[in-house]
Amino acid sequence: MSRIHPIIMAGGRGTRFWPASRETLPKQFLEIGGEGSLLTRTGARLAPLAPPHDTWVVTNVAHVGIAADHLPDIPRDQIVGEPVGRNTAPCIALAAALVAREDPEGVLVVAPADHWIGNEEEFRATIEEGVRVAREEKGLVTFGVVPTGPETGYGYIEAGEELAGQGSVARVVRFTEKPDRPTAEKFLAGGRHYWNSGIFAWRADVFLEELARQHPDMAAECRRMAQAVDRGSALETGYPSLTSISVDYAVLEHSDNVYVVPAEFPWSDVGSWDALADISPADGRGNVLEGDALAVGSTGCFVRSTSRFVSVVGAKDLIVVDLPDALLVCSKERTQDVKKVVEALEKAERRDLL
Amino acid sequence: MSRIHPIIMAGGRGTRFWPASRETLPKQFLEIGGEGSLLTRTGARLAPLAPPHDTWVVTNVAHVGIAADHLPDIPRDQIVGEPVGRNTAPCIALAAALVAREDPEGVLVVAPADHWIGNEEEFRATIEEGVRVAREEKGLVTFGVVPTGPETGYGYIEAGEELAGQGSVARVVRFTEKPDRPTAEKFLAGGRHYWNSGIFAWRADVFLEELARQHPDMAAECRRMAQAVDRGSALETGYPSLTSISVDYAVLEHSDNVYVVPAEFPWSDVGSWDALADISPADGRGNVLEGDALAVGSTGCFVRSTSRFVSVVGAKDLIVVDLPDALLVCSKERTQDVKKVVEALEKAERRDLL
Repeated sequence: MSRIHPIIMAGGRGTRFWPASRETLPKQFLEIGGEGSLLTRTGARLAPLAPPHDTWVVTNVAHVGIAADHLPDIPRDQIVGEPVGRNTAPCIALAAALVAREDPEGVLVVAPADHWIGNEEEFRATIEEGVRVAREEKGLVTFGVVPTGPETGYGYIEAGEELAGQGSVARVVRFTEKPDRPTAEKFLAGGRHYWNSGIFAWRADVFLEELARQHPDMAAECRRMAQAVDRGSALETGYPSLTSISVDYAVLEHSDNVYVVPAEFPWSDVGSWDALADISPADGRGNVLEGDALAVGSTGCFVRSTSRFVSVVGAKDLIVVDLPDALLVCSKERTQDVKKVVEALEKAERRDLL
Repeated sequence: MSRIHPIIMAGGRGTRFWPASRETLPKQFLEIGGEGSLLTRTGARLAPLAPPHDTWVVTNVAHVGIAADHLPDIPRDQIVGEPVGRNTAPCIALAAALVAREDPEGVLVVAPADHWIGNEEEFRATIEEGVRVAREEKGLVTFGVVPTGPETGYGYIEAGEELAGQGSVARVVRFTEKPDRPTAEKFLAGGRHYWNSGIFAWRADVFLEELARQHPDMAAECRRMAQAVDRGSALETGYPSLTSISVDYAVLEHSDNVYVVPAEFPWSDVGSWDALADISPADGRGNVLEGDALAVGSTGCFVRSTSRFVSVVGAKDLIVVDLPDALLVCSKERTQDVKKVVEALEKAERRDLL
């Protein structure tokens, strides 16, 4: 039987986790929502599915070294450095081409490095179910998280006809990226929509064939780079030429061979500080206090102290993140605007704080 | 004519300005609401009224050295160290006894070291008017700030019969310490009440006679300590035995020889961080940003950064005070609770942060 090949996508920057995340230390390298970095925990979560020599990591070329530190078991040659970020389609295409060289029917399990999963056992059982579907149907398998609210920041997957005798596994009708609130509420009420977890399973050859149909240049270029003797040099010249596009837009939305496997495990993309607050165990007043911190007459506050004593007094629904060189104080409902601070720092050329 | 003797009361601890104020550096030694420390500015404000050798400072014995640093012109012998704090009555009584040794009819101008005054010229003109009244009436003169709102945190002075031909200078009917809100509103509407500025003017002998009538032991002990050859030793044994009581309670409330001179200058006791925010020049969105700070989508915030870059995002009416070893984030309406942080630190024996 073909093997399983975990593909860990670790190329993000995660500016919304500033000041903890920096250009030299993006979100996936941070300890967020658990012990060990998100990347280390993603590796550990996938490890029971496949041995290290079948596992691949794709990250920015500047972060190959630190990724190796966080995943010491993965052979260094399988930590691939992107010279520039090009979103998920080129990243997955390159990984698929690398796997296809020696195991074309091998099943990729593609997972973002910076998500949080609340139940590892259930996660793996779900992934194994998806791998089975990917093998049996020769399809592109998505994992759909059962929505717990009308979130507008996620992509939604609409499930169609269920596969006979395969529980809730269904064909996918369509994808909707970040709906408005009324649409999200309609999705939630209808019971046919899932959140797009960004986790996928598919055979390398099946994916590359579908990609070749929709983006033949990208497929060809990725196969070329994967076969290059000097991979670093090939990526340096070839990778920047690829279209920056998500795998959802590039492949999934235009394919009639897409399936969704329902994911019941607790999941979060921890896209911002308030999302982290949501998944962190809070005290009786809804406060999450990390490090040397004290809350007086405060509710719903998330405080991360790394370098000094931090006190919050009479505060409500605040995020306070203390780093030795920078501090963020942000209302929970405005954590999306943290990127505006990063933009201001870029404009002011405050390189030391980026 | 008898001389003027400024008496600067610099014995407070100012815990509500934590984390900027510490046991080793109380509020009066901080740069608050202007350039230079509150103590330095208090000295400069009084300097045109009297030469340094007629000026006295009373502070905690642990702070004599730093007080001398902040007021280098004052002879070291005239910076008096209290072994323990005993509120304002003993402090003023001791100063009066020291002055009375060689200028019994000299007029003390008693001023707290940690207040903010918005107009120095008007301040001195008002004080000179008070000194005139203290001399002519041989009375105890208070300075009453014209209220701008129904503050419940201040003491109030009720003015009675005005002195003939002396403008608004009046006899005092009574004092009311920290009234409840309805009472404060009644006071404001009535137009007969002033805020007690805590600034006073009176002849040394007049004050000591009144004190001797009401607290003969305190008056006698202060005269004894003032005449001691070894003042430090005399204070160490005598001062702790004095009753801890304010001059308002100890003397003014029970005397029929008290006057009030209206004070029109901008004044604040800057009793807490929000009071400092009130007197600090704000930007168009009501934010006061000191140091390396950035506000995004925030209003009414006071940010003091001393050690790194501080950003506030989507915040409203917050106080953020950043020190190298401690941080305070506090809603403006709860700044009185800063002392609860200090209490918690005391309980936890976090000496380094106190």
